[in-house]
Amino acid sequence: MNVVAGIDIGGTKTKIGLVNQQGESLVQTFFRTKDYPDLDLFLEKINSTISELKNQTSRDTNLLGVGIGAPNASSKRGTIENASNLVWKGSVPLLEKLKEKINLPAKLMNDASAAALGEMLFGDAKGMKDFIVVTLGTGFGGGIVANGQLIDGYDGFAGELGHIDLTLGDGRLTGLGVRGGLEAYVSATGLKRTILYMLCKYNEESRFRSIAYNDLHGEEITKAAEEGDPIAIKAFEYTGKILGFALANFTAFTQPEAFFLLGGLAGSDKWIFEPTKKYMDTYLLDIYKGKVKLLPSGLQDKNAAISGAAALIWSEFKN
Amino acid sequence: MNVVAGIDIGGTKTKIGLVNQQGESLVQTFFRTKDYPDLDLFLEKINSTISELKNQTSRDTNLLGVGIGAPNASSKRGTIENASNLVWKGSVPLLEKLKEKINLPAKLMNDASAAALGEMLFGDAKGMKDFIVVTLGTGFGGGIVANGQLIDGYDGFAGELGHIDLTLGDGRLTGLGVRGGLEAYVSATGLKRTILYMLCKYNEESRFRSIAYNDLHGEEITKAAEEGDPIAIKAFEYTGKILGFALANFTAFTQPEAFFLLGGLAGSDKWIFEPTKKYMDTYLLDIYKGKVKLLPSGLQDKNAAISGAAALIWSEFKN
Repeated sequence: MNVVAGIDIGGTKTKIGLVNQQGESLVQTFFRTKDYPDLDLFLEKINSTISELKNQTSRDTNLLGVGIGAPNASSKRGTIENASNLVWKGSVPLLEKLKEKINLPAKLMNDASAAALGEMLFGDAKGMKDFIVVTLGTGFGGGIVANGQLIDGYDGFAGELGHIDLTLGDGRLTGLGVRGGLEAYVSATGLKRTILYMLCKYNEESRFRSIAYNDLHGEEITKAAEEGDPIAIKAFEYTGKILGFALANFTAFTQPEAFFLLGGLAGSDKWIFEPTKKYMDTYLLDIYKGKVKLLPSGLQDKNAAISGAAALIWSEFKN
Repeated sequence: MNVVAGIDIGGTKTKIGLVNQQGESLVQTFFRTKDYPDLDLFLEKINSTISELKNQTSRDTNLLGVGIGAPNASSKRGTIENASNLVWKGSVPLLEKLKEKINLPAKLMNDASAAALGEMLFGDAKGMKDFIVVTLGTGFGGGIVANGQLIDGYDGFAGELGHIDLTLGDGRLTGLGVRGGLEAYVSATGLKRTILYMLCKYNEESRFRSIAYNDLHGEEITKAAEEGDPIAIKAFEYTGKILGFALANFTAFTQPEAFFLLGGLAGSDKWIFEPTKKYMDTYLLDIYKGKVKLLPSGLQDKNAAISGAAALIWSEFKN
């Protein structure tokens, strides 16, 4: 059976799985990215992990290649550049170094772009020519498909939607020092910051008055909203308003048929989807109204990041 | 000799020319769009005008087809929809009706998208795979090319960049009733509105204190800036700041290699290019800095709108 190794490099974990042609990860594992500050040792760990996974599958498993998704990755250069959440600094020639160790087709791409390819191959964007995947995790990523193709950009850095600033340079500071960048509002971290904002703005009682910022976790905010905590509910409404406003604006750019939300914050279900949809519909231009879908990713159940990374290679074998 | 009829439908004038394979308009003319509120009469006028132009050329002139650029046009539907500056209201099936009268290949496209095709075929974007043409006339239009292809969007309304709102819904009202839309700031009309804003904000003397808004023309503002009028200079600085900020944000979307500015406001040369470049460079993310060009359209000398419209057909004949 043919498989592709799908690798998702994140700030905390590096996840690896062997993925079949249906996008299913047959076996997978992870290790802590920060345990490998030396790039060579990291790549050796990748190599040995793939071998271990392969040994866990049947004898006739044939590895077609390696697809990697990572933050701040350039598909055109095969590098990771100045990723604020990763241990390696500056411009990292990841693909070139990996190919020295693994003699197989290998591709690297921005994690959100990989997710968009995954959505097209294995998820709910099958047959769509124009759509955008928005990843809402620690940060905010974008994978843009238009005319049936993934948009790379001039040197592979298209889709950095989390750094789009809708506040004329006068908003919250992001991790990259950009004022007003979307990811300072719409992400797991952004939601936590919005809890602070709401605690400051309103007087209502809330469990969050007894929890320090550093002890705050995204899932707790969803739970609090379920239980009627007014600060949590206001925080989701505000987050959805900004996301809905942003998606309405993105529509005027490439006019997608659908937006797919993926990642931690997308897991808050109606708390994020309902206000986002409401405000997106409010702010959409008339020529777009009723034509843009807001959907959960079809890969939420599957191991989305691993499947997406594997799609980089599987997309070469389609038909 | 083979030619294509290039037609630019504008709120004031409809321009028609016969364009050769080099993008040069050999003969051209115009008539007033508003003189033809009846669509059938308008299309007959188009038809007769093309015949007249053809009679002005040599006998061996062979008309390959008709390309049309218009505001709010959908290339996928062949319609013009709710164009606020045109006489025909609602959804206008222009292409279908035209084909009843003219038995030739015909295409319709948003005027800014047509300009982008023109820039790729006849202008300074030859060989570029990723660029954006921004048209700065009465409004603000966008034509986006990515992966070497024009981006149409789900039903042909991509590139409505003038309606992107960078003020979180709290800015000037555009003609379409959108708050904060870019075209309320960066366009011939936007510049005039900014003159009012500057007259209101500052106390300096200015020739514009003696001119009513309705008597104000864009070229006068450029002339005033040349002569040192402080309100005109501040207005250009402000316009360039918002445009530069917008282009920096657009870069995070499809990462173009270059932006081309076209249209009336682009004719203000350094008064618009210098502040736009300065602020674009200020606001660009580090991964993009030094990689994005800001250029005047290579079609400014040619009859840009006519050439762009003709490119719709000529692009079918390139190898």
